[in-house]
Amino acid sequence: MTQRIAVPLPKAYLLLNHGPTVLVSSAHGGRQNVMAAAWNMALDFDPPKVAVVIDKATLTRELVEASGEFVLNVPSRQQAALTLAVGTQSGREVDKFSLKVGAGAAAASMVGAPLIEGCLAWLECRVIPEPHIQQTYDLFLGQVIAAWADPDAFSNGRWHFPDSQRHSIHYQAGGSFFATGETFEA
Amino acid sequence: MTQRIAVPLPKAYLLLNHGPTVLVSSAHGGRQNVMAAAWNMALDFDPPKVAVVIDKATLTRELVEASGEFVLNVPSRQQAALTLAVGTQSGREVDKFSLKVGAGAAAASMVGAPLIEGCLAWLECRVIPEPHIQQTYDLFLGQVIAAWADPDAFSNGRWHFPDSQRHSIHYQAGGSFFATGETFEA
Repeated sequence: MTQRIAVPLPKAYLLLNHGPTVLVSSAHGGRQNVMAAAWNMALDFDPPKVAVVIDKATLTRELVEASGEFVLNVPSRQQAALTLAVGTQSGREVDKFSLKVGAGAAAASMVGAPLIEGCLAWLECRVIPEPHIQQTYDLFLGQVIAAWADPDAFSNGRWHFPDSQRHSIHYQAGGSFFATGETFEA
Repeated sequence: MTQRIAVPLPKAYLLLNHGPTVLVSSAHGGRQNVMAAAWNMALDFDPPKVAVVIDKATLTRELVEASGEFVLNVPSRQQAALTLAVGTQSGREVDKFSLKVGAGAAAASMVGAPLIEGCLAWLECRVIPEPHIQQTYDLFLGQVIAAWADPDAFSNGRWHFPDSQRHSIHYQAGGSFFATGETFEA
């Protein structure tokens, strides 16, 4: 398992501020799943909140609605094949934790949904119930109740990707991603 | 003015899919404004929808609520200083279109809010009224009714940043950005 350090909750928004594609993990009633989500964003600083789109057709939707919980996992470039695989296959048809590309799962601290191994950061979230926008727009809001990061990649409120493979990623389309690029000051 | 070609509406989500920081422009009653927003995302494909967080304290909020319209502009690295300036100063105190860093404005096609010159892409949006989430979370949903891109940077549904300055950008914190990095296939 990747090393993990706690991220203070008022800093949790920084894990998503630059718009990475995330993996949404979920669990309920003995089942667990993970899917990819480019459509996510921070929604508030403190207490930290997030927004993510979870389509009605997905098993993730069923598990998130049943449990009221999810984890946003920030994958690295090393996990791009995994991100693509869990974003294009349905948890109704395959167990994504036995895929060849490998979605390893570790226990979270505050929620039943697993932390995906090898990611750069993790946000454990409790759904803020907003049935109208969930139903109408597939839009889920969550309060972040615990956050973690690989200290090689994020510490003291800043990302510092340690090598070319351990960068966050941004999905484009058709299997194509962007890596998070160089840092610069405006 | 930057060259602009129309982006077919079902492809408009691709302008935001990789999570760039945007500029939100707005206009109402003879006033116009522009602010930065890292907290934005695509919300649907076709008709295309977007979500963006617009704080209650901002002039942008007042103009968007009054007009029911906004534009999401995707700035380039060349515009990082502008992005930081319009993200840290209030339109109540300065006219952001007369800043030294320069936010030039051009007329949009479908909305009163201006297109910010020199950007890489533009999404003209009409607010989808959802008063509860606007009030509770500062969360605004919009339907994209016209979309444009600089053809040097985006065409045929794909980004292809032409040089190191004309990349989209991702705000981190404290004046620090990431450039959108290299493309790769998973």
